[in-house]
Amino acid sequence: MALKTRRVRLARKPQNAIEVSDFLIEQIVLEELKDGQLLLRPLYLSLDPYLLSFMRDWSGPQRDWSDGIIVGRAISQVVASQAQGFAEGDLVIGDCHWQDLDVRPAKAMRQLESSLLSPSLQLGVLGASGITAWAGVTDVLEPKAGQTLVISAASGPVGSVAGQLAKAAGARVVGIAGGVEKCRYVVEQFGFDACVDHRQADFPAALAAALPDGADLHFESVGAATLDPVLPLMNKFGCIALCGLMQHYQDRDPVTLSNFRSLLYGALQLQSFHLADYGKRFSEATEVLSGLLEQGQLRYSEVISEGLEQAPAAYVAMTRGQGIGKHLVHLG
Amino acid sequence: MALKTRRVRLARKPQNAIEVSDFLIEQIVLEELKDGQLLLRPLYLSLDPYLLSFMRDWSGPQRDWSDGIIVGRAISQVVASQAQGFAEGDLVIGDCHWQDLDVRPAKAMRQLESSLLSPSLQLGVLGASGITAWAGVTDVLEPKAGQTLVISAASGPVGSVAGQLAKAAGARVVGIAGGVEKCRYVVEQFGFDACVDHRQADFPAALAAALPDGADLHFESVGAATLDPVLPLMNKFGCIALCGLMQHYQDRDPVTLSNFRSLLYGALQLQSFHLADYGKRFSEATEVLSGLLEQGQLRYSEVISEGLEQAPAAYVAMTRGQGIGKHLVHLG
Repeated sequence: MALKTRRVRLARKPQNAIEVSDFLIEQIVLEELKDGQLLLRPLYLSLDPYLLSFMRDWSGPQRDWSDGIIVGRAISQVVASQAQGFAEGDLVIGDCHWQDLDVRPAKAMRQLESSLLSPSLQLGVLGASGITAWAGVTDVLEPKAGQTLVISAASGPVGSVAGQLAKAAGARVVGIAGGVEKCRYVVEQFGFDACVDHRQADFPAALAAALPDGADLHFESVGAATLDPVLPLMNKFGCIALCGLMQHYQDRDPVTLSNFRSLLYGALQLQSFHLADYGKRFSEATEVLSGLLEQGQLRYSEVISEGLEQAPAAYVAMTRGQGIGKHLVHLG
Repeated sequence: MALKTRRVRLARKPQNAIEVSDFLIEQIVLEELKDGQLLLRPLYLSLDPYLLSFMRDWSGPQRDWSDGIIVGRAISQVVASQAQGFAEGDLVIGDCHWQDLDVRPAKAMRQLESSLLSPSLQLGVLGASGITAWAGVTDVLEPKAGQTLVISAASGPVGSVAGQLAKAAGARVVGIAGGVEKCRYVVEQFGFDACVDHRQADFPAALAAALPDGADLHFESVGAATLDPVLPLMNKFGCIALCGLMQHYQDRDPVTLSNFRSLLYGALQLQSFHLADYGKRFSEATEVLSGLLEQGQLRYSEVISEGLEQAPAAYVAMTRGQGIGKHLVHLG
C-alpha cells in the first residue's frame, strides 16, 4: 500500500534574500521500502545556514538541487525497517528530506543511544553545531590563557559553544551578535566577557573599544560584515578560523574587504575547516561536550518551531538572525 | 667642513599610480659625523615594492614619512668611521637614504664579507628577496614532490627564487607573470614548468588549463588580480603563502575577491609572513641560497639603473612591472 506524506521543497531558485514564498508544501507518494532501507518519521529537522548555499547554487556536494528537494540533518524514529540491526522505534541521526515520513538507506543513518537528554541536542550542542565549534576552537585556534578571542554569530549554536570552550581554556572571549538583546544573552547566559552589537551605528569603534589589547584569535562564521572590522584589530601572528560565510550564502556577489591588507601586515593566518573532515574525532569531541554539559559548564539555547508546515518560515527566520541558539523544526 | 650631497625624496604624497614627478632631487648639507656613526657612500639602492606602501601612507614602521624622505635597503661603502669595528672601505648592508653620501648609525649596518660575487646579490638573490622566497617556500608552504605550486610575480626577484626552490623540492611549478616575454623567461631561464600571462584576454581560463590537476600551494605577492583566479583552482586543504600585496600598495581601495568563498569551500589556509621575523634563520637561508648559486642551480636577473638621478624613473618602472628580476640603482 503506497504511503503518502507532505514534503517541503523549493518552488524556485531563491533570488536575493530567501523568502517563505520560495518554498512550497506538496503531497507525495513514498517509494516502496526496499532491502537496506528504513521508513523514518523525522522528529527534528536541523535548520542550518550551509543549506542556503545549496539552495542558491541549485547544487550540493552529493547531488544536483535543481529539483528543489531539500535534504538536511535530522533526528528520526524508525517506523519500519528492511535493514539488519535497525528496528521499529529506534532513534537515528542522518540526512533526511523535509517530509513527515521518509524512506532512506539505513547506511546513511547512525543509531542514537537512549539518553535522558532531548534527542534534539544531537543536532545542536552535542551534534554538528557543537562539534564544529569544538573543531574550530580546539584544533584550529587552540586558545591559551591570556589570549583574546573574538567570535562572530556569537549567539548562534556554533558561536555560543565556541565561546564557552574558549572560556574553559582560559581565554578572554568577545562576541559579536545582532542586537542588544542577543548581546546581553551572550554575556549573561553564555558567559562571554563582552559582546558587541554589529547593528549599532559605529560598530568598528565599539568593537575596538571592547578589544583594548587587540584580538589574538577570531572565529568567523558570517563574512565581510564581521571579518572586515575584526581584521585591523588582530594582533601580530593572530589566527582566524573560517567556519562559515553565512552572509555570502545569500548571493554570489564578490566579497569586499577594506582591511584585507591587515592579513599581510599582521602576519595573520586564516584557516578554513570543515566538520566532515573531523569524522574520526567525533567521539573525542562529543565526550568533551557531554562532559561540560553534565557539569553544567555548557549552556545552549534552542529555537524550536512546531510542525513541518512551519519549516519555511523557521528557515527564513534563521537566515535573518531571528532567535537565539539552534533552530529546529519539531515534527509531531 | 660641511659636506654636501644629492638626495632623492618625495615632492608630494603619491596619488594614484606613482609617477616620476612625485619625486624631486635636492642638494642638502650632511650632518657632522658623531660618535657611533658612519659616513657612507651607497653603492646599490634596492628598489622594493613594500616601500610604496610607506610612500603612499606617508608612514612606515619606524617613523613618519610625511617629510617625503625615503629610507630603503642599500649596500654602501664606508667613507669615514666614528664607530669601533668599522673602517674606511668596508662594505656594509643596511637601510640608507637615497643619497650620494649618507650619515648612518653603525649599529644599523652589518658588514659584508668580501666575495667574488657582486655585492648587489646581497640585496637580491642572497639578500632580502632570496630569503623572503626561502621563508615562504621552506617554512610556510613546504612543497613536496608531486605537488603543484603557483607563483604570482614569477619573474620578480622573490617569485623567481621561490619557484626554483620549489622545483628543487620536487614540485611542479606554474608561474604567473605579465607579458609573453616575461613568461618565456620564467620558463626558459628560471626553469618553471609553465608560466601564464595575466595580461591575456581570458587569463583565468588559461591558468586553469595550466593546472589540470589544480594547485596545492600558492605563493602570492600581487593581490586580487592573481589571487582571485587562483582561489577556485586550489585543491582541498591547499595552502597560500601571502608574501606581499604589490597591487594594493598603489591605493587604499577595498580588496574585492569574487572567489573568496573558495577559501572556505576548499578548507584552505592563507598564511602571511614577514621577512623580519626570520632574522634568526638568515644564515640558514643564505647557506641554502649560496649553495644552490654555487652549484649553478639558482638563476637570477638584475635590472640595474645607473646614477642617483635615475632612482625615481627606475622605481616607477619597477612598480609598473617593467624588466625582469631585481631592480637596483647603482651609484658611481
